[in-house]
Amino acid sequence: MSEVVNKAAAARQASYGLSKLDTEAKNAALNAVADALWEHRETLMEANQRDLEAADGMLQKGEITGAMIKRMALNTSKVQGIVDMVKSVASLNDPVGKTEYARELDEGLDLFRVTSPLGVVAVIFESRPDALVQIASLCLKSGNSVLLKGGSEARHSNRKLYTIIKEATGDLPDGWIQIMEVRDEVTKLLELDAYVDLIIPRGSNEFVRYIQNNTRIPVLGHADGVCHIYVDSEADLDMAVKVCLDAKIQYPSVCNAVDTILVHEDIAKGFIAPMVETLLDKAVEVRGGEQVLEIIKEGVKAATDDDWGHEYLDYIVALKIVPDADEAITHINGYGSHHTDAILTGNAETAVYFIDSVDSANVFWNASTRFADGYRYGLGSEVGISTGKIHARGPSGLEGLTIYRYILRGDGHIVADYVGDGAKKYTHRSIDEKW
Amino acid sequence: MSEVVNKAAAARQASYGLSKLDTEAKNAALNAVADALWEHRETLMEANQRDLEAADGMLQKGEITGAMIKRMALNTSKVQGIVDMVKSVASLNDPVGKTEYARELDEGLDLFRVTSPLGVVAVIFESRPDALVQIASLCLKSGNSVLLKGGSEARHSNRKLYTIIKEATGDLPDGWIQIMEVRDEVTKLLELDAYVDLIIPRGSNEFVRYIQNNTRIPVLGHADGVCHIYVDSEADLDMAVKVCLDAKIQYPSVCNAVDTILVHEDIAKGFIAPMVETLLDKAVEVRGGEQVLEIIKEGVKAATDDDWGHEYLDYIVALKIVPDADEAITHINGYGSHHTDAILTGNAETAVYFIDSVDSANVFWNASTRFADGYRYGLGSEVGISTGKIHARGPSGLEGLTIYRYILRGDGHIVADYVGDGAKKYTHRSIDEKW
Repeated sequence: MSEVVNKAAAARQASYGLSKLDTEAKNAALNAVADALWEHRETLMEANQRDLEAADGMLQKGEITGAMIKRMALNTSKVQGIVDMVKSVASLNDPVGKTEYARELDEGLDLFRVTSPLGVVAVIFESRPDALVQIASLCLKSGNSVLLKGGSEARHSNRKLYTIIKEATGDLPDGWIQIMEVRDEVTKLLELDAYVDLIIPRGSNEFVRYIQNNTRIPVLGHADGVCHIYVDSEADLDMAVKVCLDAKIQYPSVCNAVDTILVHEDIAKGFIAPMVETLLDKAVEVRGGEQVLEIIKEGVKAATDDDWGHEYLDYIVALKIVPDADEAITHINGYGSHHTDAILTGNAETAVYFIDSVDSANVFWNASTRFADGYRYGLGSEVGISTGKIHARGPSGLEGLTIYRYILRGDGHIVADYVGDGAKKYTHRSIDEKW
Repeated sequence: MSEVVNKAAAARQASYGLSKLDTEAKNAALNAVADALWEHRETLMEANQRDLEAADGMLQKGEITGAMIKRMALNTSKVQGIVDMVKSVASLNDPVGKTEYARELDEGLDLFRVTSPLGVVAVIFESRPDALVQIASLCLKSGNSVLLKGGSEARHSNRKLYTIIKEATGDLPDGWIQIMEVRDEVTKLLELDAYVDLIIPRGSNEFVRYIQNNTRIPVLGHADGVCHIYVDSEADLDMAVKVCLDAKIQYPSVCNAVDTILVHEDIAKGFIAPMVETLLDKAVEVRGGEQVLEIIKEGVKAATDDDWGHEYLDYIVALKIVPDADEAITHINGYGSHHTDAILTGNAETAVYFIDSVDSANVFWNASTRFADGYRYGLGSEVGISTGKIHARGPSGLEGLTIYRYILRGDGHIVADYVGDGAKKYTHRSIDEKW
């Protein structure tokens, strides 16, 4: 058996014990992790320093960017932030063991639907060391074993973090946290659907798509975040310029930044000139459709077919004029990635029509697409944003790491009594009882 | 483009219109379907007759069983039952458009989580014509387009049912219901993850596993239903015999019938003799583990390793003695299929320990495994029983055909205002408002 199979099997075994832990035990473990991280901050920063030294060489070879190094670097204040984050996870409500509903099937035969952990979650994440701690904390809180694979450029930091967490949680079922350090392990992991219940890939579109295309294990996440804003004929144009600018430049390299702005033809002349001026002023490249170029040529590039449905992750935006909301909806459902799309309008009827017609995880009315985020939604902490429609959709927090099970408590009840002549009848009555 | 691609694309297109329908429109369509089925009952039974005539030949060649023919045959009373079933789906609560929660993110910026259809559901089902109508009705009620593939032995009945439903729902978005009649279409369907959101395969274990192993589309269902009953040392032995018998013979050919009975060694002598006698009396073949054979030899076959984790779907049961609940739990988590497992005991502490340790969709205490069923649970109507842990688990009704989406309503809110110096704060306050 290869090593990753052993790790996954151990994680599965540990998951049976982990799912039984009560909230106090999980919170005690989280607080022990927080304390240990602070206690070992010096050796942690030493390990991080080794990664940073190696990264310098990678930077010169162009294998890594300066921004990546900046995200990777730890200092005392960043460690404090990580410690605070772990404590904040301890303070979240326990998502496990909640009775979603209780129903009497017949006298003395009571059904409970109770939330439970998934079991084993595998997370492949970017090169921010705090990602490892965040994911491990959320899995612990939700009673899941976790298999972690971070970027190889942060391997010393990740190994140290893993060791600190593992040692601080010695009271938990052995094997609940596992680290993978070789890319080959991920390839093998993709086959282990007997041991792994969910994969959460965080990384480039290509990487997420590779994972989705090569495993039978359910995947939570999104490959593309192609976001649209439709500026309706009844939009407030000042608001529209402000919201579109925020959606584009507040943080252009993330999935919920806007990529294509669709403009109703009736307001195109009044909107496009100030919008383009504002965008160019902020050094955003504007790619306009044919009709846009008829209105304004200066500074605007011609959009090609490749621009529709393109996720830029950069200071670039595409601009297109549409005859009506229906055309905007068709464009969005056809070219979009079902992540986040917005309408700007003062007309409530048009807004509702748009919202009911756009098949996306997040549909906004008069607000920036950048609000699509677990923190902003108040979910506590986010494990990912899902564009799938199964299980969890949109920003997903602890709830995305749980499922439910049915518990039936009887007194020797048998099905034969409810069948045929003189059959007993089910009462199917809601009861106010917790499991 | 092959024909099935066209069907799936049309279903996807129709789904955008279907998701917008209000409850009245969906119920009106369901009632129109019920009326049309009754009105066309004669031509329906004629089509069914053609299937039955062809089935006679298949029966002689051994391609079909007498039980299958019996399930397939329609008469006036069965048609009446189907009509009643459609009307009962109309009377269920609409699972779509429910506000799961509403939260103020800040003044004037309100987030709503609202239930929505999945989009396009493909169902491959057994040769009971009522299955087609049930599935189509549940998909319509939940606002989903549906691709249907029934058994070829019922092809005339299925085509007639499809035609009746399609014509009766002429007001719905064209293409919402599609029928596949060739096995090749299913093979192609498995690649169409761009158009199909969920596959529900109903059929043999091998068939379900084939579907699971050959598509990236999420699958709702179960391949195996390997069910266990653990008879604890503190079980009421009369109750245990009664419950085990019901779980085995009340309907042996279904997924929630018991396959392996695990018996605590302390009560083995008192339990096994009457249990085996009762089982043999009902013509159930008993396969005993080594220790069972030490207690009773007469009429009991020796179990082999293949018996543990085997789903019999027949009058066969395996019997094994275990030293304690932990061994039973290990056996169940190791050999089971995470479908339905039960403990029989008078000791509440042992019961809770067992329930917390067994990783199955349905875990029962002093009740027959046969209760694991959407109808008995009071879910209204069942689309399948899921042993997966993602999305829906256990018996799944209308809720299993829905997901949610996030709707954010602002007044020109931008993220930049909530970042940096003088940042506005999120209020994250629950509000009592429906979308």
